[in-house]
Amino acid sequence: MKAVVLDGREGVSLQEVAPPAPGPGEALVQILSAGICGTDLELARGYMGFSGIPGHEFVGRIAAVTSPSDQLLKGARVVGEINLGCEQCALCAQGMARHCARRRVVGILGKSGAHAEMITLPVSCLRAIPAEVTDTQAVFVEPAAAALRILDQVAVSKSSRILVLGDGRLGLLAAQALAPRCASVTLAGRHAAKMALARQLGLETTSAPDQQAPFDVVVEATGSPEGLPRALQLTRPGGTVALKSTCASPVTLDAAKAVIDEITIIGSRCGRFEPAIEALASGAIKVDPIVSATYPLAHAVEAYRHAARPEALKVILQVGA
Amino acid sequence: MKAVVLDGREGVSLQEVAPPAPGPGEALVQILSAGICGTDLELARGYMGFSGIPGHEFVGRIAAVTSPSDQLLKGARVVGEINLGCEQCALCAQGMARHCARRRVVGILGKSGAHAEMITLPVSCLRAIPAEVTDTQAVFVEPAAAALRILDQVAVSKSSRILVLGDGRLGLLAAQALAPRCASVTLAGRHAAKMALARQLGLETTSAPDQQAPFDVVVEATGSPEGLPRALQLTRPGGTVALKSTCASPVTLDAAKAVIDEITIIGSRCGRFEPAIEALASGAIKVDPIVSATYPLAHAVEAYRHAARPEALKVILQVGA
Repeated sequence: MKAVVLDGREGVSLQEVAPPAPGPGEALVQILSAGICGTDLELARGYMGFSGIPGHEFVGRIAAVTSPSDQLLKGARVVGEINLGCEQCALCAQGMARHCARRRVVGILGKSGAHAEMITLPVSCLRAIPAEVTDTQAVFVEPAAAALRILDQVAVSKSSRILVLGDGRLGLLAAQALAPRCASVTLAGRHAAKMALARQLGLETTSAPDQQAPFDVVVEATGSPEGLPRALQLTRPGGTVALKSTCASPVTLDAAKAVIDEITIIGSRCGRFEPAIEALASGAIKVDPIVSATYPLAHAVEAYRHAARPEALKVILQVGA
Repeated sequence: MKAVVLDGREGVSLQEVAPPAPGPGEALVQILSAGICGTDLELARGYMGFSGIPGHEFVGRIAAVTSPSDQLLKGARVVGEINLGCEQCALCAQGMARHCARRRVVGILGKSGAHAEMITLPVSCLRAIPAEVTDTQAVFVEPAAAALRILDQVAVSKSSRILVLGDGRLGLLAAQALAPRCASVTLAGRHAAKMALARQLGLETTSAPDQQAPFDVVVEATGSPEGLPRALQLTRPGGTVALKSTCASPVTLDAAKAVIDEITIIGSRCGRFEPAIEALASGAIKVDPIVSATYPLAHAVEAYRHAARPEALKVILQVGA
């Protein structure tokens, strides 16, 4: 089959590789669409020493299963949880497979990803996609779940004043995830076109948030090491920073400010798929305007190049139909 | 009166200054004992551009009041809250004077401190000290309140595994504050004598906490910019770092680790005095072994020098009797 392959040095290439074979309890999934995200671009630059097939945002169709009891699943349109726990440790037993120390992460750590014609995954990780969610929309289940994760971690109320720092893909999703729950959600960014898009999505925007009127909650979604220090400056005493960016480079922090103002910084990563599928189905989170371009898998190298442009939002790989 | 004076450049001196006069609603308090803390030592080195009389850990006796309705308070032995809010803003109205943007902080910001024969303070900030708490013990009300503050902010249970990083004054108080609430509290430090003292106080100690068995909660009380990154390494996925050190220097952080492991970092500063007075009265927090030396006010310069030694714990200024 055709697959994108990263080697951590020579960058991105499209190669012919052996198709994967599903093991016990696994399904073979034919990829329909997949998204290129910031982490994929970091992996292409050598982050985490990754080599192999990337891609963890995808929708596909179950082509084969190994367990007789799963036969009825064939043909189902599905997305897949990306953290595969060992299913033996205490964290997995508590439903925290996302934090299992021996976990594999699809397209990121120890498990081939979805920028390919096919992938194998445990059936237990797959989630059905309702008909009203298009393939392109379904690609956003994983990042929308990451955006909605903030609501699991931070207590917000209708009166909370929220600032989302960063007008990229994650910022646009996070602002939409929070908007139905809080009367005041403002997105701060520096790219005129992305900010215009945010307003088109019904969001308040600002290019210069006011440090004199700090926020109850600041979502740091800049993808830059300058994001956290800036978020800290914009958070009120006793307020919360939800930290989303996984920058490879270290961050320099005025920790004394966090202590004196008793600010809480919460690291926030992956979320549950069910509320994300619901939010996409209901239109609470709109993603179609966030798609910058769609490329066939055969043009994946060009798609990666496009996704790395500063003005790009989501770039989609169209794999099957 | 005699008072310690810092000028942010030439360091610590003992000077003869005009005694303060209490304003409306204020009391004149004769200092009995006062403590020298890490913040005082930082101020002496020029932190926050402080100049004036330092000292925010103290016990004294009310010598005079200005309001006729306060006359009965004369002679009372008291400690004083150190954050003086403007009493007009929204934060003060919510009982968050500790975070009032226009607050004065005794001996730290815009208000003369207690390393002197007398101090003036609003009567509303004073708290009576019961007879069973000695003067020396009462000096610890402010730092013990800061240690107990952690329990207001972090949900701990009997089964929580807690690590306190730092065997200084604050670490020893924080470990004692947490020990009655959690079966497993370990203090990590590098000073043999302080660690022996911790064991004498009934605490578990370690010189090399195991990164392979990370903790539910890590209290960062090292006073060093290396403390927070180390605390992060020792916290389990989904766990919490209570950040206590107010280092003037910036901290370099592996923020990606906080995101991937979804760790919460909570800045923690001052606490309520009532539970601290109770904990000192009941002996739940023992402070007598933490006193390294007591100096008369006349020898304050020497006392500051002693407090700055690496092996020193609390150094007390004996002012009145």
